[in-house]
Amino acid sequence: MDTPTPPPGDPLRLRRVAIDTYRENVAYLHRDCGVYRAEGFQALSKVEVCANDVRIFAVLNVVDDENIVSPGELGLSEQAYAQLNLDEGAAVKIAHAEPPRSMDAVRRKIFGERLDLDDFRAIAFEISDNRYSKMEIAAFLVAAGQVGMDRDEVLHLTRAMLESGERLDWEEALVADKHCIGGIPGNRTSMLVVPIVAAHGMLIPKTSSRAITSPAGTADTMEVLADVNLAPDTLRHIIRQQRGCLAWGGTARLAPVDDILISVERPLGIDSPGQMVASILSKKLAAGATHLLVDIPVGPTAKVRHMREALQLRKLFEFVGDRLGLHLEVIITDGRQPIGRGIGPVLEARDVMQVLENNPQAAADLRQKSLRLAGRILEFDPDVRGGEGYAIARDILDSGRALAKMNAMIDAQGRRSEDYTPGRITFEVSADRDGVVTGIDNYLLARLARMAGAPMDKGAGVDLLKKLGEPVQHGEPLYRVHAQFPADFKFARALSEEHGSGYRLGEPHEVPKLYVEF
Amino acid sequence: MDTPTPPPGDPLRLRRVAIDTYRENVAYLHRDCGVYRAEGFQALSKVEVCANDVRIFAVLNVVDDENIVSPGELGLSEQAYAQLNLDEGAAVKIAHAEPPRSMDAVRRKIFGERLDLDDFRAIAFEISDNRYSKMEIAAFLVAAGQVGMDRDEVLHLTRAMLESGERLDWEEALVADKHCIGGIPGNRTSMLVVPIVAAHGMLIPKTSSRAITSPAGTADTMEVLADVNLAPDTLRHIIRQQRGCLAWGGTARLAPVDDILISVERPLGIDSPGQMVASILSKKLAAGATHLLVDIPVGPTAKVRHMREALQLRKLFEFVGDRLGLHLEVIITDGRQPIGRGIGPVLEARDVMQVLENNPQAAADLRQKSLRLAGRILEFDPDVRGGEGYAIARDILDSGRALAKMNAMIDAQGRRSEDYTPGRITFEVSADRDGVVTGIDNYLLARLARMAGAPMDKGAGVDLLKKLGEPVQHGEPLYRVHAQFPADFKFARALSEEHGSGYRLGEPHEVPKLYVEF
Repeated sequence: MDTPTPPPGDPLRLRRVAIDTYRENVAYLHRDCGVYRAEGFQALSKVEVCANDVRIFAVLNVVDDENIVSPGELGLSEQAYAQLNLDEGAAVKIAHAEPPRSMDAVRRKIFGERLDLDDFRAIAFEISDNRYSKMEIAAFLVAAGQVGMDRDEVLHLTRAMLESGERLDWEEALVADKHCIGGIPGNRTSMLVVPIVAAHGMLIPKTSSRAITSPAGTADTMEVLADVNLAPDTLRHIIRQQRGCLAWGGTARLAPVDDILISVERPLGIDSPGQMVASILSKKLAAGATHLLVDIPVGPTAKVRHMREALQLRKLFEFVGDRLGLHLEVIITDGRQPIGRGIGPVLEARDVMQVLENNPQAAADLRQKSLRLAGRILEFDPDVRGGEGYAIARDILDSGRALAKMNAMIDAQGRRSEDYTPGRITFEVSADRDGVVTGIDNYLLARLARMAGAPMDKGAGVDLLKKLGEPVQHGEPLYRVHAQFPADFKFARALSEEHGSGYRLGEPHEVPKLYVEF
Repeated sequence: MDTPTPPPGDPLRLRRVAIDTYRENVAYLHRDCGVYRAEGFQALSKVEVCANDVRIFAVLNVVDDENIVSPGELGLSEQAYAQLNLDEGAAVKIAHAEPPRSMDAVRRKIFGERLDLDDFRAIAFEISDNRYSKMEIAAFLVAAGQVGMDRDEVLHLTRAMLESGERLDWEEALVADKHCIGGIPGNRTSMLVVPIVAAHGMLIPKTSSRAITSPAGTADTMEVLADVNLAPDTLRHIIRQQRGCLAWGGTARLAPVDDILISVERPLGIDSPGQMVASILSKKLAAGATHLLVDIPVGPTAKVRHMREALQLRKLFEFVGDRLGLHLEVIITDGRQPIGRGIGPVLEARDVMQVLENNPQAAADLRQKSLRLAGRILEFDPDVRGGEGYAIARDILDSGRALAKMNAMIDAQGRRSEDYTPGRITFEVSADRDGVVTGIDNYLLARLARMAGAPMDKGAGVDLLKKLGEPVQHGEPLYRVHAQFPADFKFARALSEEHGSGYRLGEPHEVPKLYVEF
């Protein structure tokens, strides 16, 4: 046997490999590396990289090009390199990683067993420690979603996820937050609720998310108006000063396990109620919220399609929230159609600004829903009488104080050029008969906006010209699609030709009824 | 906005990136590539790479180093590059990959539904087309394992997996094969059964596997004696000439979906009966078998621990085998302890050769089990009377014809230097009391052999000095561990100190009874 270089057991020199592998750590070893040969590693196997007291886990890729790594080196992808926090050339060792111990608990869950708090703690710890591969996480999520978690298990999981990261303390008795479970395009109420609540003086340190499967998250839309990528310190400073903020929350290390689980859940398109509740509540508690309003839209093409389901979900939120000391209220809202007119960052920013500016053209449903949500949050304030929140919110909005607060937040975050021009390549989709709009497919319109380029192309999206209950004539346009690039335009057009307009036209009595507060 | 290079829609130049990512296709794009920026790709998202008529799917990694890929290039990892079958510099296009359509069926399975043949066909097709990510495969496996598949579903899955690849046709009426479901260290009966059956003249084109979680597969052990990495044509030629072969089967594209599923199942440590049956039978049918003997060892530390379970598994094998036109017999065997003495490639090869050479030292249990399995296979021959197979097999072995056949196969595959020296760094584990061996932990001894370096270090492993029922005295050695490298020696020693010897000593009546044929 020829002598491998270096012999097993000897350290390798650390090298930074400029490859971005997102949330997955990757280690690169040259095929002729003695350690690789002696230890019997396989490509894609999980390895443990140690240097001084730091130990990280990574997936192994085997390299045949000395320009990437040479036989005496161990390469790490950007994220893995950053975690090790060492200089290039430092001595590192590599070993087989034992599979995560808590996979035993996952296998017990697969066999239908109930897990206890210690099990969930072990799972959350090892996930946050990067010991789980994507497929191990998928196994956990499917098992937990399929056998189902009882409500105690959801409570345990929430607690374990909360404990996996930092927890902010705002040192105030009332820290408000809101959350919508999603699924309704154009639903940018946060951009109105936060300025209204903050203008009232209540602390609402809500952070926003970027779209993953939707055409725009609040962070994407806010980015049309202001910078949203703020360092955690800047974020905290703005929140203390302005009482609220509309920035991206991805830079804070709050409930990091949640981010990792979501990175697997989203592409799989699986979303169990227990997992959703644990995810939302752990994040909100980690962010320091004491009072939370949860918005569950219900409608035929919303995430929650029946009132029965919405009520079950509400009970679960209440059960877990109460036991973790969170003052939590759930409202079930109208999710039959998109909120406002625009879908996509620029178009949604336009809608929001029109409401704030008390423009007579402003979308009435966006204004109404935002006022009602803000009103409920204002009633968390012991000094606000039950039932008076709405009027206070309306007064803050109508008086221009909400707009002033929004402008102050935009300036604090860093104002961007106010360019509300939607994408210039457009097509309109028109009614194929006379009638009344009796249905709008949230899911199809969201997909259309994404195909057109949202959220990456800020101006791309869909502008609705008709909403539920409005009469239309044959040939009259229902909505306009905006794209920035011809390729996206083509994709969107093909989708709309394949799946139809997403609108249903019929008689006035066919508009689905929904008995929710708003 | 500055002009990206090249603009979206324009082709990129193909570049081979010398990184081995095993079964996962990886595509590399430079962060400044115009296509990357305009299309809004994310690291780790699934992309579709097209060139001429070929289309492959890959996971995206984003690169910041022009030595790996420059902004005008699209890099592909070794396996992905090979699939595209183009020269470097060829024009390729990249697009977002839509999630696999059959994930809808997987989600239905997650919700507890029964899938039909078309669902399984769609899943198998998209898996073999590389459209499933590891986590999507994990979701399928956990869902199918957890809700369970009824026997029709197992039949559908087997058929769908079989259809996913080539199917060999040996143009003979009787093509024999054998398979053991595994879990018993040292169980190298194939290396005796194949020469005996082939010496009888029956075609047994069995291919062998390498160890993944065990300390040696038949291919690893055979590699001590001969080359096992044979090109498919060579393999077929040897089988026709010798009537059998002992080579690695990984080069043939038989039931490729099975290989992909196994690459996820093994690291997860999940193994449902339905999945196991579909995996084994699709592989065997693809290899052209008409007659199959399945060996199910039962024992307290075997894969199957109770007779009840073994019988259920037998019925499932029979149901699926019968419907796919396979003559299938199942035998339930003694899995209470390892077979033979050696665990690890060199030690097992020594055991096998001692039996073939009729060495008086040869392990009696390995000889007996192999003769009985070979006898049952010989009885597939219509000219062999029921009950006479064993005597024929024994005659072939005792007369030296099996050894001659083995030597002919070794020469055909390519003989290796006969070095049976086990690893030179050893330690012995001794009895801590007087008594009779009443239990041997298959699982612990397999792990010990792996820690010692098997199967990569051929000489590493465990040599058993005592078996079930044998009397031992306090201080007498139970087994010897062989390692080739000090680090492995240390690992193995630590494991044995942590978990004990894996032997149970007691009274003769405490040896567990097992009512199986052998």
